[in-house]
Formats: sequence, C-alpha cells, structure tokens
Amino acid sequence: MYRAPVEDIAFTLKHVAGMKSALDAGRFGDLGEDLVDAVLGEAGRFATEEVAPLYKIGDQQGAVLKDAAVTTPLGWKELYRRWIDGGWNALSGPEAYGGQALPTMLGVAALEMWNSAAMAFGIGPTLTMGAVEALDKHASENLKAKYLEKLVSGEWMGTMNLTEPQAGSDLAALRARAEPAGDGSYRIFGQKIFITYGEHDFTDNIIHLVLARLPDAPAGTRGISLFLVPKFLVGDDGSLGARNDVFCSGLEHKLGIHASPTCTMIYGDGFQGAKPGAIGWLIGEENKGLACMFTMMNNARLCVGMQGVAVAEAATQKAIAYANERRQGKAASYAGAGMAPIVHHPDVQRNLLTMKALTQIARAISYSCAHAIDLARVSDGDEAAHWRDRANLLTPLAKAFSTDVGVDVASLGVQVHGGMGFIEETGAAAFYRDARIAPIYEGTNGIQAVDLVMRKLPLGGGDHVHGYIAELAVVANAVRTSNLEGFGRTADALDAVFGDLTQATRFLQKLAADGRPDEALAGATPYLRLISLAAGGAYLAQGALADHNRIALCRFFAENLLGEVNALKERVVDGAESLAVAGKTLISA
Amino acid sequence: MYRAPVEDIAFTLKHVAGMKSALDAGRFGDLGEDLVDAVLGEAGRFATEEVAPLYKIGDQQGAVLKDAAVTTPLGWKELYRRWIDGGWNALSGPEAYGGQALPTMLGVAALEMWNSAAMAFGIGPTLTMGAVEALDKHASENLKAKYLEKLVSGEWMGTMNLTEPQAGSDLAALRARAEPAGDGSYRIFGQKIFITYGEHDFTDNIIHLVLARLPDAPAGTRGISLFLVPKFLVGDDGSLGARNDVFCSGLEHKLGIHASPTCTMIYGDGFQGAKPGAIGWLIGEENKGLACMFTMMNNARLCVGMQGVAVAEAATQKAIAYANERRQGKAASYAGAGMAPIVHHPDVQRNLLTMKALTQIARAISYSCAHAIDLARVSDGDEAAHWRDRANLLTPLAKAFSTDVGVDVASLGVQVHGGMGFIEETGAAAFYRDARIAPIYEGTNGIQAVDLVMRKLPLGGGDHVHGYIAELAVVANAVRTSNLEGFGRTADALDAVFGDLTQATRFLQKLAADGRPDEALAGATPYLRLISLAAGGAYLAQGALADHNRIALCRFFAENLLGEVNALKERVVDGAESLAVAGKTLISA
Repeated sequence: MYRAPVEDIAFTLKHVAGMKSALDAGRFGDLGEDLVDAVLGEAGRFATEEVAPLYKIGDQQGAVLKDAAVTTPLGWKELYRRWIDGGWNALSGPEAYGGQALPTMLGVAALEMWNSAAMAFGIGPTLTMGAVEALDKHASENLKAKYLEKLVSGEWMGTMNLTEPQAGSDLAALRARAEPAGDGSYRIFGQKIFITYGEHDFTDNIIHLVLARLPDAPAGTRGISLFLVPKFLVGDDGSLGARNDVFCSGLEHKLGIHASPTCTMIYGDGFQGAKPGAIGWLIGEENKGLACMFTMMNNARLCVGMQGVAVAEAATQKAIAYANERRQGKAASYAGAGMAPIVHHPDVQRNLLTMKALTQIARAISYSCAHAIDLARVSDGDEAAHWRDRANLLTPLAKAFSTDVGVDVASLGVQVHGGMGFIEETGAAAFYRDARIAPIYEGTNGIQAVDLVMRKLPLGGGDHVHGYIAELAVVANAVRTSNLEGFGRTADALDAVFGDLTQATRFLQKLAADGRPDEALAGATPYLRLISLAAGGAYLAQGALADHNRIALCRFFAENLLGEVNALKERVVDGAESLAVAGKTLISA
Repeated sequence: MYRAPVEDIAFTLKHVAGMKSALDAGRFGDLGEDLVDAVLGEAGRFATEEVAPLYKIGDQQGAVLKDAAVTTPLGWKELYRRWIDGGWNALSGPEAYGGQALPTMLGVAALEMWNSAAMAFGIGPTLTMGAVEALDKHASENLKAKYLEKLVSGEWMGTMNLTEPQAGSDLAALRARAEPAGDGSYRIFGQKIFITYGEHDFTDNIIHLVLARLPDAPAGTRGISLFLVPKFLVGDDGSLGARNDVFCSGLEHKLGIHASPTCTMIYGDGFQGAKPGAIGWLIGEENKGLACMFTMMNNARLCVGMQGVAVAEAATQKAIAYANERRQGKAASYAGAGMAPIVHHPDVQRNLLTMKALTQIARAISYSCAHAIDLARVSDGDEAAHWRDRANLLTPLAKAFSTDVGVDVASLGVQVHGGMGFIEETGAAAFYRDARIAPIYEGTNGIQAVDLVMRKLPLGGGDHVHGYIAELAVVANAVRTSNLEGFGRTADALDAVFGDLTQATRFLQKLAADGRPDEALAGATPYLRLISLAAGGAYLAQGALADHNRIALCRFFAENLLGEVNALKERVVDGAESLAVAGKTLISA
C-alpha cells in the first residue's frame, strides 16, 4: 500500500523547485524548514495511515444516490471529519477566515499525498479551496463573512458548476439563467452536469458556485455571471435555514474515482414542492463571471496536475514493490537461489525507471508552478509580474503533462504486474482507471496545449518563455562543469534538447505573429510535451547535482527518454501541413 | 456502434499483406477473390449485426460462477450457437475434421471483426482453435478421432491450461503433476489459474489441454508434458459420460473483458466425491509438452495481436463518429453555423489521425504475419523455410506492437470523448479497460521483445531480418519514383527510418554474437517498437501507392509519427549502460 514519500517530496520542494532559497531569503516570513518538515511529515502520516486504507472500499462501494441524497463509502464521512479536524482543509486558506495561509508549495505537496492515497478523496477539497479563492478575491464582504470561515475550515464544502450538456470546453454555450429577485438575490434555473461532490454526506451544507446568464446578458462568454447558491440557506447568525431549490438528480457511472460523486444538479425545478428558483447571490460583477471562475480554474488546473503526479507515484511504488517480490525466470544480475525477482530483468527495470523518472519530473514541474504562485504573492511590481507570468506559463504543463504521465505510468504499472495487474483486487488496475479522468477535466489536455501556445508563449512580449529556457540551460552547464562521470552524456543531451526547444518555441511564436494560428494549434500538443520533457531533464539534473544518489536516474532519463524531444520538435515545425491535409478526410460529408 | 470495416480489411489483406498476388498465383488452390469477399462480407455482417449488440450486456453482467457452474451474460450462449451454426468456428479448421481449411489470413481477418464487436466473445474460440491445432499436429489418431470434429465445429470448446500461481512467464516452475494409470490414461493433479473460458455454458463439453509433470520428469521445461482432460468423459460413440475430476473454483474479478470467464481450475481434488485424479491422455511425447504447447502459442500470439487491432479499430470508429457529432468552440476550417464539430479542431484531428494510422499499421503487420503462415503451409523446402522464418519474425511484432497500439488508441479514444469518455455508458472506457489485457497474456510484451531479439533476429544466420528490411525499403523507393506530390517527405522519412532500423538490428545482432545478452535485452522493447513503426510506414506507403486516397494518412504518419524511430534507435544502441546503472537502485536490500 501507498507510503507517502515525504523525503522525496521535501527534497523536490526545497532543492528542485526553489523552496529552500525562498525560505532562506525569508520570503515566507517566519516559516522555516522545521515547520515545513513537520507539516509534510504529519500530512504523510495522515495520508499513509488514514486515507490510503480507505481507498479500496471507496473504489468498490462508490458513492450511492437515493432520494436526492448521496451516501459516501463506509468510513469516508468519518475520514473527512478527521481530516478537517487535523486542519488540513485550512492549510493554504486566508488567515482572516481561520486559514493557515501556508505557501501553495506546501498545499500542493499535501494535496499530492491525499491524492496518492485516494484520488476520489483528494478531489473533493480541491473544489472547496477553489471556492474559497473565488470568494476571497471577488465576493462582497457580506458573502465572505457568512461563508468563508466554514469553507476554510472544511465544515462546509464548495463546488464549481460550469458544465452543461452542450457546454463543456466551450462555456460560451452556457444556458443556465439567473433572474434578479429585486431584493439583491437572484433565482437560478438550469441543469449542470459533471459536478464533482455536488451532493454528499460529508458536510451539513454545500456551497455551490454556479455560472449562469442574466436576462439580456450578451451572448457568449461576456454574458456569464457567477452566483453563490447554498444547499441550505444560511441565517445571519450562521444557522442553517430552509432547503434551497437545488438537488442532485443523478450520479455518473464512471470508469474510476468511484467514491467521488459526479452529480447532475438541477436548479430551480421546484424541488420538494418549493416555489421554483434556486436562491443565489452574485459573486463579483454582472457578466464578469468567467473572470471570477478563472481565478479558481487556474489553481484547480495545478491541483489536477497534482492528481497526475499522485497516481503516478502510487502506481510506481506498487510496481517496484511487486517487482521485488514476484519471482520469474533467470537473470544475469541475480546470484540468489531459484527464480529471480523480476526487478532483475532489464525490461522490467526499463518500465520501472521510466515510471520513476516521469513521476519525478511531473512533480518538479508542478511544484515549480506552485513556487511561482507563491513568489508572485509575496512580491511586488516587476518581480510579481515575472512570477505571475511564470505561474501562467507552467500551469498548462503542470496540468497536462502530469496527467498524461499519470495515465502512462499507471498503464506501465499494470504491465509490470503481469496477469495480476488485470485483476481488480491487486489494485494496479484501479490506478489505471482513476488516472484516466485527469487529462480530461479542468480543461482537456488539448485545451491546455492551446492555452500554452496561444496565451502563454506570448507572455512578456514573447520573452518570458525564453528567459525560462535560459534558466534551464544553466543547469545543463552546471552538469558539464561538475565533471561527474555518473552523468554520462546528460549535458550533451540537455544541450540538444534546449536547442530544439528554442527552435520550436520561436517557430510557434512566429506563426502566431504571422496570423497563422491553425498551424500553431496543430503543433500545440507535441510542443507541450516537448517543453515539459526539456524542463523535466533540467529539474532531474538539478536534483542530481544536489544529491548524487539521484544521478543514475537523471542519466537514464537523459540517455533513454530525452531522445523523444527531437521527434516532437520535428512534429511542431514540420507536421502541420500533413495534419491539415489528412485531417480533412476525417470530416463526415 | 461498431460497423465491420470490410472494405478496409479486404484492401489490407489483398494489397498490403500480399493476398492478391498469392490468389493470382493460385497459391490457395481454387480460392478466388469472390469467395474471399463473400466470406469477409458475411463475417462483417455477423460481427456488426449479431455480436456487437451484445457487447454492452456482456461487459455489464459479466460471467457469473455458482456451484462450480459459470453462466455467461444474457444472450451470449445463443450468440455462440448462431456463430458456430454459421460455420465460423470451422473457418480455418482442418478439412479432415470438417473444417473449411481457409487461409489463416481470412481467419485472422474474421477474428479481428469478432474481437472488435466484443473482445470477451472473440477470445473464447481462439483457445478452441489453438487446441485444434495442437491436437491435429501432435495427438494420436484415437484422440483426434474422438475430439477433433466437435472442436472444429465448435460443438465443444477447448482451453489452454498453463499458468499456475508461481509459474506465469516462467513455465519451468510448473508443479501440476500427472500419474500414469496403467491403462494408457493418466491422473492429473494441481491448480491452474487465469484459464480463459475454463468453465462456461456455451457447450456441453469442454476439452482442457493441460501442462503437467510426470513422476521423475526432469526439472524445468524439459519435464513438462501435455494432456487432454475433458470436462465430461467421452464414450467411443462420442456420447458424454461421467463428470471428470476437474472444476472451476473461482472467477477473477477483472478490469475488462468481463464476459470472458477467467477461471481457477482444480484438477484431481475429488470433485463431488469423485476418487481424486482428473482422467487425462497424453498429447505427443512425454516431456515434450512445451513443444506441443508452442504450436498453439505462436498462433495464439497472432490472435491476441488481432485483439489489439480489433479494439483499436472499434475505438477509432467510435471516436471519429463522436468528433463529427459533438460541437464545441469555433474552428477556422468550419464555415457552418454555431459551434464547430470538434473534428474540425487540429488537436482532435491529430488524435484521430494517430489512432487511424496506428490501427492500420498494426493490422498490416498482423495480416502480413498471417500471410507468411499461409505461404509456409503451401510451400516446400527453402521457400517454406523462408516463410516460416518470416512468420516467426513477425509474430512478436503482431502480438506486442498491436496490443500496445490497442491500449494507446483506446486511451486516445477516451480523450476525444472528453468528460463523456469517462462515463461507462458511452462505451469508450470499456475499450480502454478491455484493451489492457492484450499486452499481458500469451507472453507479456516484454517477453515478446526478448523473443524477437534473442530468437528471431538470429533467424537465417541473422540474414532473414535484413532481407525483410530490404523488401520494406523497396517501397520507399517506389514512393520516390512515383513522384506523387501528396506524399510530401514520405520517401525521405522512410529512407531515414530504414537506415536506423538496419543500424539498430546490426547492433543487437553483434551484442548477441559477442555474448552480451543483457545489453541486448535492455534494448529489446524499444527495438520491437522501432521495427514495427518502420514496417508500418512501408505498409502504409504500399497501400497508398495502390489507392491514392490513402496517401494523406501515409504522409501524416511519415511526417508526424515516424520521427520516434530515431529516438528508439538511440535508446537501443546507447541506452543499455544507463539502464543497468540506474536499474540497480530499484532492487530492495
């Protein structure tokens, strides 16, 4: 079973993603390494001892809907209670409302552990934290006073209601509507689908954040507003009042994360004989709902990226343990009696090292994104702008690359287990099932790639990304000048990779400048993987320079996996025309 | 829902995999294109209209075990009956026992369609056909007379009993034992696991082929014998007699192919109060069981490869259909009103074209393997040896590359569906679940790669593979001299690929010759993918030369996906040392 890799996580935070220098420079105030280590250790203990043991029952029982009420699996409600009692929901929450306001880096490190232990558990609070952020930034003082403290503590949970059947990636197609009631409140009507933890038994109240259109709102995304709609109305003293006109009409039957209730929510249909119309309050300005939602979506994207890292870590641990136990055949490197543990077979080693390396680079990218968010928060002026750009640049990498890694690593994990991998009781297959959602939700990975190429490469007049590449290239130099033999051809491999990365980046920037977006879009997905692998190579090398025990894996990655970058570059700079020609053949008459 | 792509299949058989020239040269006797087309058309109709509609209920209900009896999902028993009544089980069976003895090419083409329609259905008869082949080649006339006719017609089904808990990939560790009863029969004792269709309600009798050890048999694989153990004993008149001492004690709870019962079989435990010992008869010689089993395993490997092709085809069809229906966002290439069908988005096109190209090359490789099997059967002397070598060379490619493609394509298929892909009712997730077994059973793909490098590259003194590469390279030349603009840089890409392939091949052959197998094994998996992609590029080009409508996809593949080959080559020739160094760190103390 999963054991939180606290040392690995702490090492990556501090020595790869920049936390150590930030702490040493006092960027996080009083926060010191001791407290960081204590928090990580305690989170690791909770994830390992409390969350992970409930993974299997969560997968098997799943969430169950009856009479508009959702029951979570046996023991999960109590788990959630212990989890908020431990203060984990409040980790990164605003201090004014009882949060500990610890850095995002620490928050996502803990999030990784909850998700490794049980992704269906980890996803719920992610939504609450998103709601906290949106309210904290955009809501009126009245709304904040009434809702934030309980959302920060976790006494209530929050949800995000965006998707409708016809409006998934394209929110411009939203139809849910909101009518002003004349008393400052609104009445919300419509159906929302795929609402994570839209209904459950963890908390007494659930605070829905809902996108809807006001009467006469402009068409498209400029006519969308954001509303707060509580499951139970809340009195001025914080007491729970009447049931609001919103209910869960169905749960999706999903491939994975069975314990996470994925709800169809009906607003304003006259639930239990109520006068139709769910009572809601506007968050932020009218018709500016999408901007408010993006506040939480950016953070949510990083959080989903952590799910990719998390499931990859859990799958890797399980596969390495199995490969050390399971014996089959002979191996030259095994001198013991009888059959060799399969970890001695080169082909099994290749799978396991690939899993390990990909997991570590996804983690390094995601933590680096969190680091940028943190530094943006504690900086001013140009420095803040620099780190905001960095966080924006890294968010699609953290989301898409990490979640692709989650799927690929979980699939390799099944393979390492052989026939046992296909048997549900083994647990490897559950990771493969759970992992598959992460490349889809919070903006499909295809959309992340489009975001990267169209909105992130132009940051800082197109210079920001080149600054990032230059920073990464410094690591390649450090490897070369280290003269450490164990690195093999790592420095050469990294140099080649940064050459390819620079070329592909300039190529896409020029296409955008030339007004040829379709060709840029054709290369978006290979480019996202390219820059992620290149960055990952530098991060692995940086870690290896700080801890020489990590050199062997870095070299394996550089000499076995970085070769893909050149092919990706070719795809970016030379693949669009053939894609466009062949693409036409796919379109039905 | 799946519609059998009869035209595509017929085209690939005839114009890519060599069937047309073989037919024209009269290599298959009277068989002509008309009959081929009729058989394919009728198989396509049966798969589309009869099998595919029962896929979903099979996945949902699964096979159920009660009191040692297995019930298949509603309608499946009747489906099987209609299927054997249509003569489909007898398609490639020996004529002497009622088979139609049609070419393997036709058999695997039909098999692809059954498996696309429902993989859990397609896998059952594959085992029966393996049993037929093993009996036909190795069993005594008595056994053949008693069992073959009913196995060929499908009135009875066959099974393969190899795996035991401690003996999966490594059959040397087998423990099941067989004792001579003194009357020419044996008594079999032991437990077998992962037995596909080991128990079911399709047929009145089930004929188990079981590997076991005789008393005082040598240790390891040279002490294994093969036995025929019927579920019900069979009288000389063919009537069913007493229940034999073999039963199913458990069904596995699997990730996919739920309708296929995966059984734990207990031999000789005194089932229903019987005197312990399952009655069996020796097939072939004592202690030569593995050779007999390999007869059926080689064929079974190609059949499993067809499952990879099949699930990839089904997933691709579904994704293309969805992408033409689902509308989200705007696209430059879409001039219609409202949101564009997502098939217009370049990133979606990239996913779909990748799915389509990989499916087609996996199919071409697998059919080419079947073609080699067929020509070996109808040839003599050197020519027969040549085609046997070719079949042996292509078998690990057909098995491993195709099944990896099955997983990757099914995963892309889920992605194209967005959130709907994660919902079980959509059906895309079921392909992703089903596909995952094929890289594992009948020898994991890692073992296929080892087989390719250690046993297939040395064929013909190491020359056979180079002859194959030379044949493929001819196609690259034909593309160049065609002067068809649509091919873009295809010819250059293919030339580069065959250079890399030759280099990687010679490198691995030299390692083996130099007695450095571990380094060769380190490169085995990347090499298998390398040669498969290279061959696939040539096959796509060959098809495109015969049908210019196929040029666009060929070019997409050459310009977007063949770039991976160079990275794979680097991994083969330069990746072993770093793998060996880092691999040591995976081994527990």
